Amino acid sequence: MTTAPGAGVLEPVLVIGTGLVGTSVGLALGAAGIQVHLRDLDQAALVVAASRGAGQVGGLGAGGRTEAGDPVRLVVVAVPPGRVPEVAAEALTTHPDAVVTDVGSVKSEPLRALSVLVGGDDLARYVGGHPMSGSEQSGPWAASAELFSGRAWAVTPHRRSAPAAVAAVEALARACGSAVVTMSPDEHDLAVARVSHLPHLLSVLTAAQLVTAPPDHLSLSGQGLRDVTRVAAGDPGLWTQIISANAPALRTLLRGVRDDLDVLLAGLDAPAGDGIGAILTRAVDGTRRIPAKHGGPARAEAVVVVSVPDRPGELARLFADAGQSGVNVEDLRIDHDPGRPVGLVELVVQADAADRLIEALAARGWSAHR
Amino acid sequence: MTTAPGAGVLEPVLVIGTGLVGTSVGLALGAAGIQVHLRDLDQAALVVAASRGAGQVGGLGAGGRTEAGDPVRLVVVAVPPGRVPEVAAEALTTHPDAVVTDVGSVKSEPLRALSVLVGGDDLARYVGGHPMSGSEQSGPWAASAELFSGRAWAVTPHRRSAPAAVAAVEALARACGSAVVTMSPDEHDLAVARVSHLPHLLSVLTAAQLVTAPPDHLSLSGQGLRDVTRVAAGDPGLWTQIISANAPALRTLLRGVRDDLDVLLAGLDAPAGDGIGAILTRAVDGTRRIPAKHGGPARAEAVVVVSVPDRPGELARLFADAGQSGVNVEDLRIDHDPGRPVGLVELVVQADAADRLIEALAARGWSAHR
Repeated sequence: MTTAPGAGVLEPVLVIGTGLVGTSVGLALGAAGIQVHLRDLDQAALVVAASRGAGQVGGLGAGGRTEAGDPVRLVVVAVPPGRVPEVAAEALTTHPDAVVTDVGSVKSEPLRALSVLVGGDDLARYVGGHPMSGSEQSGPWAASAELFSGRAWAVTPHRRSAPAAVAAVEALARACGSAVVTMSPDEHDLAVARVSHLPHLLSVLTAAQLVTAPPDHLSLSGQGLRDVTRVAAGDPGLWTQIISANAPALRTLLRGVRDDLDVLLAGLDAPAGDGIGAILTRAVDGTRRIPAKHGGPARAEAVVVVSVPDRPGELARLFADAGQSGVNVEDLRIDHDPGRPVGLVELVVQADAADRLIEALAARGWSAHR
Repeated sequence: MTTAPGAGVLEPVLVIGTGLVGTSVGLALGAAGIQVHLRDLDQAALVVAASRGAGQVGGLGAGGRTEAGDPVRLVVVAVPPGRVPEVAAEALTTHPDAVVTDVGSVKSEPLRALSVLVGGDDLARYVGGHPMSGSEQSGPWAASAELFSGRAWAVTPHRRSAPAAVAAVEALARACGSAVVTMSPDEHDLAVARVSHLPHLLSVLTAAQLVTAPPDHLSLSGQGLRDVTRVAAGDPGLWTQIISANAPALRTLLRGVRDDLDVLLAGLDAPAGDGIGAILTRAVDGTRRIPAKHGGPARAEAVVVVSVPDRPGELARLFADAGQSGVNVEDLRIDHDPGRPVGLVELVVQADAADRLIEALAARGWSAHR
């Protein structure tokens, strides 16, 4: 294990756990021509995953070898967070020639638990991973070879990880179409506490306040509220596990938030509200630090709003006309009310291209504005 | 002032303040064929608004009458929040036959200030309003006749408002294409504290934590973080005014959030984390109470993800094919990386139509999944 392998030398791969992520890994590797074997205690999930083409059920004999006698080279542990250490330990023992990785969303505590279960030589073949796939679906039915396409995949070597094992997990991430981001387990947990778990909890705190709202108050809801609370609709059981597993990193951040919250409360009682203004300004700076999608540098964007008649083919015509303008549409949103004859489409473009797009659309008869 | 007026009997209208909202009101009323006059201390803004067709600069003689001798029937005060009471009081005095309204995002405190400045007879002609237009742009350059189209417009009568004055402001909102939501100033302020100002502050608290994050931590940012923090990019000066003006309603809500936050912090130290689970579950219930866009009942939606080659015309072809499927696309998002040959398009459809759309797209060669 001294050379960095390409995707081809990963095979055969064993995926343990055929939920959304495991099945999607099987589909993505299969699409890359890599031989995949599947295992799951849940026979129904296993059958669905196999029928979708994610890999072969079982097919491994004594010593974890294929019928052709090849040893498994990579095991992907894709089981619920609480079971990762135990399943990874078993995989390291059963497959002595394999690199073992997992896809859990917290990395430090499972590594600690695993290091109690296996010896140092075996632990060298384990490298954690975490694809930032961001789906709110679950189960093999929702799986897709494209789930990881263009997303970040955190690879989290520990001090004793063998370099070739790290390279194998990075090759797995790339074979699934992801961008590799390598960091230590502790750094990873601090990072996701800040960019994923804390935003989830603050979204939750916002949504929890809606339960006691009179219905006519909610009639004033706008897109801002929908954006802030979208992730709060995620599965409470799964999120309780994730948050509990990352408690140390989250505790520090949540205490910082409580300090800021106290400054806001004090600011409400102060006539000038200077403390409030300082936090609002800090927040604007914070939003500017978020990288553009797929990790590129943050760029100035502008929104162009277009009125679109609610008739078949009008959206297609709009995109054809926008395409002719030569301006790249980076994101968009449809604000459509079935009861109204016109919908609003918001096109997100680079700020310096907005006027060009508006002119081009106006020339083709569209009502467009910033 | 005894009959409920239609849009036509509002004219002539005087709009004071030609920023984003005032200019957009002028454009919307102009599009409805209603005569509009404009006033602003900022001559540059006034000229831009008039050149865009939002109305006529000045044109009112002694006693606030038009050249044809008609008295102004409706004054729309669209100045910064802190100046609303003073400008509304002056308008009630200068235009004794006019209904006066404003477009500020807080209603109780400005009403109290206005009631100190004018007598009861004049106050009867004032009815507050608040269009939920939700733009993050500003200035007459960003104005549009469509800004209020399909959005809620809160109309906030007080105890002494004349019924005909209420009807006139409701007619204004409808003439601008909005759905009228009538409630008292106090109810309005409680409602926007919960559905707009509190979400803004929690988005701010999330974004403020990003300032001290190492850059490579931010490389794991996903769509969830972008959604939660989007509104935190809003103008700190304007939002400090809004939050300070609605301090009483926000104080109660923020204290409730701090209580929930303390439960989360305590839950991080408890092995089972039951308190966390309860708040996460309450949050899911909260998200289900948010009405669908434009005030319809909340409905189950599903997301269909489609891979789209980054070539001109592919988006247009996708929408043409989606249109052929007969499934109504309610919202969508493009996840596009200029450096990659394929983008991901997320189509939001009603949950029971998702499978039909996936089949129809697959039949036309698209890779689509939930």
